[in-house]
Amino acid sequence: MTSVPDSIAGLARALRRESIADLFRRDPQRVPRLTLSWDDWRVDISKERISPEALARLVSHAESLNLPHWIAALFAGEKINLSEGRPVLHTALRQRDDAPLAVDGRNVIPAVRAAQAQIRTLADAVRSGARRGATGQPIRSVVHIGIGGSDLGPRLVCDALPPTADAIDVAFVSNVDPAQLSRALAPRDPATTLFVVVSKTFTTQETLANATSAREWLAAALPPGADVGSHFVGVSANVPAAHAFGIASADVLPMWDWVGGRYSLWSAVGVPIAIRHGYAAFASLLAGAAGMDTHFRTAPLERNLPVVLGLLGWWNAAVLGHSQRIVVPYSQALARLPAYLQQLTLESNGKRVTREGAPVSGPTAPALWGDTGTDSQHAFFQWLHQGTHVVPVEFIVPVRAQEPRGRQQTLLVGNAIAQAQALMIGRGGDALQREVATLGLPAAQQHAAFAARECPGNRPSTTLLLPTLDAPNLGALLALYEHRTFVESVLLGINAFDQFGVELGKSLATPVIAALADANTAIEADPSTRALTIHARHLAAKE
Amino acid sequence: MTSVPDSIAGLARALRRESIADLFRRDPQRVPRLTLSWDDWRVDISKERISPEALARLVSHAESLNLPHWIAALFAGEKINLSEGRPVLHTALRQRDDAPLAVDGRNVIPAVRAAQAQIRTLADAVRSGARRGATGQPIRSVVHIGIGGSDLGPRLVCDALPPTADAIDVAFVSNVDPAQLSRALAPRDPATTLFVVVSKTFTTQETLANATSAREWLAAALPPGADVGSHFVGVSANVPAAHAFGIASADVLPMWDWVGGRYSLWSAVGVPIAIRHGYAAFASLLAGAAGMDTHFRTAPLERNLPVVLGLLGWWNAAVLGHSQRIVVPYSQALARLPAYLQQLTLESNGKRVTREGAPVSGPTAPALWGDTGTDSQHAFFQWLHQGTHVVPVEFIVPVRAQEPRGRQQTLLVGNAIAQAQALMIGRGGDALQREVATLGLPAAQQHAAFAARECPGNRPSTTLLLPTLDAPNLGALLALYEHRTFVESVLLGINAFDQFGVELGKSLATPVIAALADANTAIEADPSTRALTIHARHLAAKE
Repeated sequence: MTSVPDSIAGLARALRRESIADLFRRDPQRVPRLTLSWDDWRVDISKERISPEALARLVSHAESLNLPHWIAALFAGEKINLSEGRPVLHTALRQRDDAPLAVDGRNVIPAVRAAQAQIRTLADAVRSGARRGATGQPIRSVVHIGIGGSDLGPRLVCDALPPTADAIDVAFVSNVDPAQLSRALAPRDPATTLFVVVSKTFTTQETLANATSAREWLAAALPPGADVGSHFVGVSANVPAAHAFGIASADVLPMWDWVGGRYSLWSAVGVPIAIRHGYAAFASLLAGAAGMDTHFRTAPLERNLPVVLGLLGWWNAAVLGHSQRIVVPYSQALARLPAYLQQLTLESNGKRVTREGAPVSGPTAPALWGDTGTDSQHAFFQWLHQGTHVVPVEFIVPVRAQEPRGRQQTLLVGNAIAQAQALMIGRGGDALQREVATLGLPAAQQHAAFAARECPGNRPSTTLLLPTLDAPNLGALLALYEHRTFVESVLLGINAFDQFGVELGKSLATPVIAALADANTAIEADPSTRALTIHARHLAAKE
Repeated sequence: MTSVPDSIAGLARALRRESIADLFRRDPQRVPRLTLSWDDWRVDISKERISPEALARLVSHAESLNLPHWIAALFAGEKINLSEGRPVLHTALRQRDDAPLAVDGRNVIPAVRAAQAQIRTLADAVRSGARRGATGQPIRSVVHIGIGGSDLGPRLVCDALPPTADAIDVAFVSNVDPAQLSRALAPRDPATTLFVVVSKTFTTQETLANATSAREWLAAALPPGADVGSHFVGVSANVPAAHAFGIASADVLPMWDWVGGRYSLWSAVGVPIAIRHGYAAFASLLAGAAGMDTHFRTAPLERNLPVVLGLLGWWNAAVLGHSQRIVVPYSQALARLPAYLQQLTLESNGKRVTREGAPVSGPTAPALWGDTGTDSQHAFFQWLHQGTHVVPVEFIVPVRAQEPRGRQQTLLVGNAIAQAQALMIGRGGDALQREVATLGLPAAQQHAAFAARECPGNRPSTTLLLPTLDAPNLGALLALYEHRTFVESVLLGINAFDQFGVELGKSLATPVIAALADANTAIEADPSTRALTIHARHLAAKE
């Protein structure tokens, strides 16, 4: 699978011999031919090291790998998560109509609608003040406890949507480090705080540890005999365990095997979104994602945003050999987007074997990291412009501000566009020579001064312009990246929907934790692991 | 420079043929020989692909490149920032005694002490309530406005130190995106808010835009004729510009050419640390860093933490060819550490020419990214364990909690140690075969089930254990990474202290911004930049 067909490798070799700037000179139609539109969005890949011919060849390659079949199978609820024998139906969560969708012969849409009704009821009750705590006071704030997929998606969306005056305060606690919970609890009143505990199995160690500490905090602060359980809501597939923890069955919202953790913000896992921003905002988010679903399902491959971005991602990683990808949202509200996309792509496609268990013959998912613009310009852009590693960059730019201030938004958008330009065109030649000459340096220093300022350019990027960051556009943006990740997995021939690599560390932690907790417990491990455990135990005992 | 001597390349070739686990079998003394101690710290590099012999050879190589001379030159205030003709004296900011240190014939220590007195006076005045706003009410909260080095360091430290009951609320605004300022202002009372505006030149576009918007916010809310300027403090080398903005000269704290932005948290740029946590905490931070300075200056190279980590970093990047480095602090308080280190290393060593202006012959700084543990285990660790890219990981583990809760800290530390173990030992062989057999799968599926679960292991990491995260340990940790970055620059033969690569994007932004703001302004640029500018202008006009 993933092995690169000769014709594609040949196109890459030819393109490597040219500068990206030269590609514009050769083809006056390069921009329209390498710009995708969807609604008011523009995705410009013309500054990438690719040509319309190469893109057409990639589309054929995707067809030869049955991409259209895989897309149809995804939406049809086929069990494309082969290793776990499950369908992958986060798209069902945003399906607009009630067309039946069967999993193991049973229509899941009624369960989706029932869960949505539960989300709405809970969100409305908290927002209206009808939901009360053990002392009878209305709930005023929420602490969401979950980790990984139960945290990153809802947190991103809660942060990204513009806060309105009636927004409910929501804190997110994920890390088992007690510092995070302590900081979330410090400003809160136990009598008016609701905890949402999210774990599919209700056994996730971090989540249960934090939920247990939260329960102790409530029990210590509320009057004796108070109904501590009334301050908890669960989101889980394991209702008995949630019930055993002390959560009323009616307060447990569902999770299903056919929605993976990193695709779960559209389910009841996203309940803090509805609580904070209102159910209407949550529904708009789903509708925006549904719009992208329709586009993905129906648009021709060569004009299909997730498909073309997936092809480009595979081209950059597997064909051109880039081991990294950088995402820079020019939007403070999207500060958590790189972390969200990092999990989405690296947990999905950070694999080394095909669906059938054969080693993948080339690289799979490249690293994905990034931060917001304009901050990144003052952090790692030096390295992008003048370092020795060339890494493709994706600029994500919502054009209109959620709340304008002076000309700040214009500065923001202008910087994004100019950085993409700078990466491509670089700085050097006669213009820089003239600049350096004005510095009045001794002749012996002029060469070093020129070299220190020279930027080679010829560095690829994609720019995505979207009108503004509201719930529908955000939903579509996240769905775009979900589907793009799926497209990349099809090109790699891997299953994007399991994550067996996370099991090993969990099982190895148990004996280390036991040895840390008890000096009489020996640990069977390599000498380094033993020495670290013993030193950590020694330091802990100094407390 | 940076070219790899044959003897070092030969050692690397030999080490590549063995698994890291095998290296332990061959040398029973591997852990003590590859563990560094400093105070109660342990830095264990035995799980890296390196040997004591290779490390010794790297030390010789560093000596041949005059590393001891460069270290001495740094502390002596020599003009080692050659391209800008400046010394690099952030270490002077934490010097404990008053031994004179001359820059251009003038002792700078009195100026450092005077600035520290100003920081202390301001911090004490805000914390005691003596500092009042225009309406006479005491200042209660602070908004720090700065970007890049004027933001990342102070923000990291403000977040990382444990908040006490009397901690002053400090928000950080860096991005030109108006959303960040709006969110910082929303919960604040203009009458009791102080703005700290940090810009060496007082011309940084983001900082001035945010400061101007803040001034408008104050002017609109305070009584007519109120002294809006009394709500501002400046940190700048350009006193006249700060004064012109409306800041009283006495409220402008100094910056100097001999302290780079990414090394400036120890200067008046760190004033929010002293305001939030008290001057004593700030002084402890400086003292911790000074302890690491002494170690760096005096310890033998082979037992010198910054030196050995610098050698290892160069070995991994330039000799073994890793293009990335991942940092995972198992500490929520250090959530911003990866972003801070990203700027420190990538802006310092993301270069392509030597001090003399010759092209560097190999790779310079690898990418640096990461996130906190245990969250990362549920995000990108799948990719680390089972992806096709091998990336060295640095685990940073403060052992004792700032504020313990149940056994959460033990879970946290145990997970860190177990993940390093898992990366090295992997999962497979007979044990996994037996596990898969218990799944009861059809024979045809057993191979794929095994392959999906197999982790190859043999993936390198370093683990740094420190006793706890308090001001002295944090100061030492940050100084360690500063010096390590410097060591890497010496091995690369580059100047770590300039950043000319950031200039180009700034100058290209001006015409794009002009064209965005005015439809009659044409833009001279490549077709992609033109098309993006025109579409963004079109979207902006729809508002």
